[in-house]
Amino acid sequence: MMQTPLNLFSLFDYSQRMYPNKEIVTRTVAGSHRYSYREFGQRVRQLSAGLQQLGLKPGERVGTLAWNDYRHLEIYFGVPLIGSVLHTINLRLSTEHILYIVNHAEDRVLCVDETLLPLLEPIKDQLPSVHTIIVLGDNPDLSKSPIQPAIGYEDFLRQQTSDIIYDPNLPEDSMLGMCYTSATTGNPKGVAYSHRGIYLHSMAMGLANTSGLSENDTVMPIVPMFHANAWGLPFSSLWFGANIVLPGPAPTPKILVDLMAKEHVTVAAGVPTIWLGVARVLEAEPTQLSLRMALCGGSAAPVALIRTFENVFKVPFAHAYGMTETSPLASFSRLKSGLAALDAEERLTIRATQGLLVPGLYVRLVRNGEEMPWDGESMGELWLRGPWVADEYYKDDRTQESFQDGWLKSGDVATIDREGYIRLVDRTKDLVKSGGEWISSVDLENALMAHPSIFEASVVGVAHPKWDERPLAFVVLKEGKRATKEDILDHLSQSFAKWWVPDDVIFLEEIPKTTVGKFMKRELRDRYHDYLMSSNQVTE
Amino acid sequence: MMQTPLNLFSLFDYSQRMYPNKEIVTRTVAGSHRYSYREFGQRVRQLSAGLQQLGLKPGERVGTLAWNDYRHLEIYFGVPLIGSVLHTINLRLSTEHILYIVNHAEDRVLCVDETLLPLLEPIKDQLPSVHTIIVLGDNPDLSKSPIQPAIGYEDFLRQQTSDIIYDPNLPEDSMLGMCYTSATTGNPKGVAYSHRGIYLHSMAMGLANTSGLSENDTVMPIVPMFHANAWGLPFSSLWFGANIVLPGPAPTPKILVDLMAKEHVTVAAGVPTIWLGVARVLEAEPTQLSLRMALCGGSAAPVALIRTFENVFKVPFAHAYGMTETSPLASFSRLKSGLAALDAEERLTIRATQGLLVPGLYVRLVRNGEEMPWDGESMGELWLRGPWVADEYYKDDRTQESFQDGWLKSGDVATIDREGYIRLVDRTKDLVKSGGEWISSVDLENALMAHPSIFEASVVGVAHPKWDERPLAFVVLKEGKRATKEDILDHLSQSFAKWWVPDDVIFLEEIPKTTVGKFMKRELRDRYHDYLMSSNQVTE
Repeated sequence: MMQTPLNLFSLFDYSQRMYPNKEIVTRTVAGSHRYSYREFGQRVRQLSAGLQQLGLKPGERVGTLAWNDYRHLEIYFGVPLIGSVLHTINLRLSTEHILYIVNHAEDRVLCVDETLLPLLEPIKDQLPSVHTIIVLGDNPDLSKSPIQPAIGYEDFLRQQTSDIIYDPNLPEDSMLGMCYTSATTGNPKGVAYSHRGIYLHSMAMGLANTSGLSENDTVMPIVPMFHANAWGLPFSSLWFGANIVLPGPAPTPKILVDLMAKEHVTVAAGVPTIWLGVARVLEAEPTQLSLRMALCGGSAAPVALIRTFENVFKVPFAHAYGMTETSPLASFSRLKSGLAALDAEERLTIRATQGLLVPGLYVRLVRNGEEMPWDGESMGELWLRGPWVADEYYKDDRTQESFQDGWLKSGDVATIDREGYIRLVDRTKDLVKSGGEWISSVDLENALMAHPSIFEASVVGVAHPKWDERPLAFVVLKEGKRATKEDILDHLSQSFAKWWVPDDVIFLEEIPKTTVGKFMKRELRDRYHDYLMSSNQVTE
Repeated sequence: MMQTPLNLFSLFDYSQRMYPNKEIVTRTVAGSHRYSYREFGQRVRQLSAGLQQLGLKPGERVGTLAWNDYRHLEIYFGVPLIGSVLHTINLRLSTEHILYIVNHAEDRVLCVDETLLPLLEPIKDQLPSVHTIIVLGDNPDLSKSPIQPAIGYEDFLRQQTSDIIYDPNLPEDSMLGMCYTSATTGNPKGVAYSHRGIYLHSMAMGLANTSGLSENDTVMPIVPMFHANAWGLPFSSLWFGANIVLPGPAPTPKILVDLMAKEHVTVAAGVPTIWLGVARVLEAEPTQLSLRMALCGGSAAPVALIRTFENVFKVPFAHAYGMTETSPLASFSRLKSGLAALDAEERLTIRATQGLLVPGLYVRLVRNGEEMPWDGESMGELWLRGPWVADEYYKDDRTQESFQDGWLKSGDVATIDREGYIRLVDRTKDLVKSGGEWISSVDLENALMAHPSIFEASVVGVAHPKWDERPLAFVVLKEGKRATKEDILDHLSQSFAKWWVPDDVIFLEEIPKTTVGKFMKRELRDRYHDYLMSSNQVTE
């Protein structure tokens, strides 16, 4: 067989030839921007030509601080197609972390949205590797910016007249991109993606057995393009000829619903908190959508949310699981045909799992170094392996903690049932270890969020004088709803053993969240660390 | 990213873990044989263990002379999983050609269906590389066979008690299988498949943009397993968890229809002559089928046949194109969503093309060394390139004729339209070259087969004193139908320029066919070579 490399050129060239008339739509502050794959491709080529003229070399990194929009998408392709590396920077990180990763990645060029220039201001003199800053916007007024010198993206493209010839034989093991993932403690850790990895991951997303992205779809990545490549959707959507809808800067749930309706979006993808927000809008204003799939990942969605989408909105809800380290798709919750005869609640229980491993990957369930059986009960840490799974953190000693014997130790505790459905039980670090027994904070949270008065809930383990750790529940009530601590603990007692029930319930206005919308349990744990250590809180 | 190899182990291991209860059903002479993926996997392991005990080494070839049945499927996996090479032998080849390819491939083991042992008898003493013959059957009486020594397959499996441990890291560039394709002249030419090629080809068949094989399907490969790996269906069906139905030895169209109905087959795959036969059965006895796709390849299906399936039987007809050298899937005729608004006949015209290039491959249209535009009119030879396209014929000097600059020269003449639809115009060798102009024999054949009285038709170019070559039509009438030469030529005159219309029409009982059901034009050309050379046949 031919040694044709599995690279982004193959994907881009195919997409340009087969689907020149498909559309890419971006919501802008002014309204919307809309163009064809053909025009997109022309601008990608101009960008590549410009970067080459700047002297950017294969392997060198280009950082982005940008929203989900068409310019960002052009950078997604224009950079790797010349063998350079797309480095998407999480714009919600702290200044210190942004400084760390630009320097750690040794970015040569930064592409920054004009609205995000303030993020760079405090650190602009501490970025020795960066030689060029390109400002993304229609017509940014660069004269007023303290970031000097900088060039406007549109001016930069306009200067490029010569056409570029890409190398179809770009080696598949070349680095295509990188993304830093936040660590529990310390600086973010870098994950490097190869052309081969992204190619195979993109193919996996087109399988009828998984998300089945196809030319029939209109795909809207709500998940930010600075987060695990927006779950790979930009690459696979382009390859398979889907229309693409990009929601632009900081969309509200209402904006998302309107955009989905207007553009006939068939597949949209976001974290549970996004879908909770969308659900609230749809409950208030029922809207006709074309969604064939509400793709949800990032953390486990509560069963109640899935039920609302499937039963009330009639929108199939697809749970997926993955990590920055797995490109990210690792599993996908699709009901096997043999299970179609189960009753609605049983089906919902399966749909609420993290689903089936994606073809192409390997999975193991490991506890104390031993492989656990797939019986739906035995818990173990998920270990993953496959051609789109990272084998290290980029130039980082923490590689040793997370990779072993050719496997990625995910840090997620799960069960796998006889059919292969993976159910996340907890993060290894979030498990509540009470008197030597394991309590799943996630199971308690799901039960809490099924309570009719509760909007959001989080459970963490805090120090306890007798049991080492005990669970503590944090709850945000729905607007206009009431519930007492006793109501809530009673509700949990119906589903769990007595020793699983949290020692207390704390009512909050909002659960603190990470930059990508996950509950920030660490903050709760730190803040309430000694909450149960005072004598009056001790359980019997 | 991890360097996890793209090999058959990944596919097999996934299939065994995720879909142990899916079924493999084989039609046998006695009735049917039915078992689960789990039992299949157990027997595959026994076979592998046995072959290793025989001393079979990685890279060594195992030849098969077998029908589409479960034992053949076990060999499909049991041989490559230990790094040895599956060599499927076309049982319809001449004795001389079978002798040639067993010796050329240097097969060490032959697995032969008991009903096919007579094929080996005349050559049994001329196979120096073969050390073991395994006979496939329930309980073959080996004592009566002149092939000695030989062992029964079931006895062979029964002897294996130790479990085998496969190497998950089998290198992806290792040879997985080989298949010989008949040449226009001379001996068959060998194509070698790598693990990587088969893995990627299998993935491509699971894409929603192509055949979208999934766990929802029940797949029946009618195309023989000795022909281009039954179009790769055994590999992709197993990977994605489809039920598999194997039609056993020499099924008639009636048997196929009954089997599709009984087993609720959703995807069946065969050459046009198979589907013509199925159509005749369905016309005589309307039958409720669950087919979501009648997959047709091997040669171009007549529009009339596609129309019958889509409009009369309400079965979507999917045209695919490929060659033994392309694993084989190269293109697939799927209607783009943007073309759904065309009227029924226009859609049918698109569905009758060879379709869109499959993601992952590259295509060029070449004439006299230049690339032709994709305008739907310019003809050129199809050149193909990609990770599941062969880069040589196995140990064969004819490699030079068919491979150039990293591309496979397919030998097929085609046009490609602006949307990317590939339309085969002819084989380079079948084009009728009349006075320096090109006439497509395929276009004429399609028009002939659209005639209400014509069942089958073939057009070949034969020698002509004035125009070098002129087309001659061969026609088989439908049972009970009548048509004269003049009727038929009149019919063609309505669609084609005068100089395209064949010089004569010859009525036959049957068009001679190759072992895989294609029209054997070479035989017609040879037999009628001088037909137009006598003076009374000369056109004006």
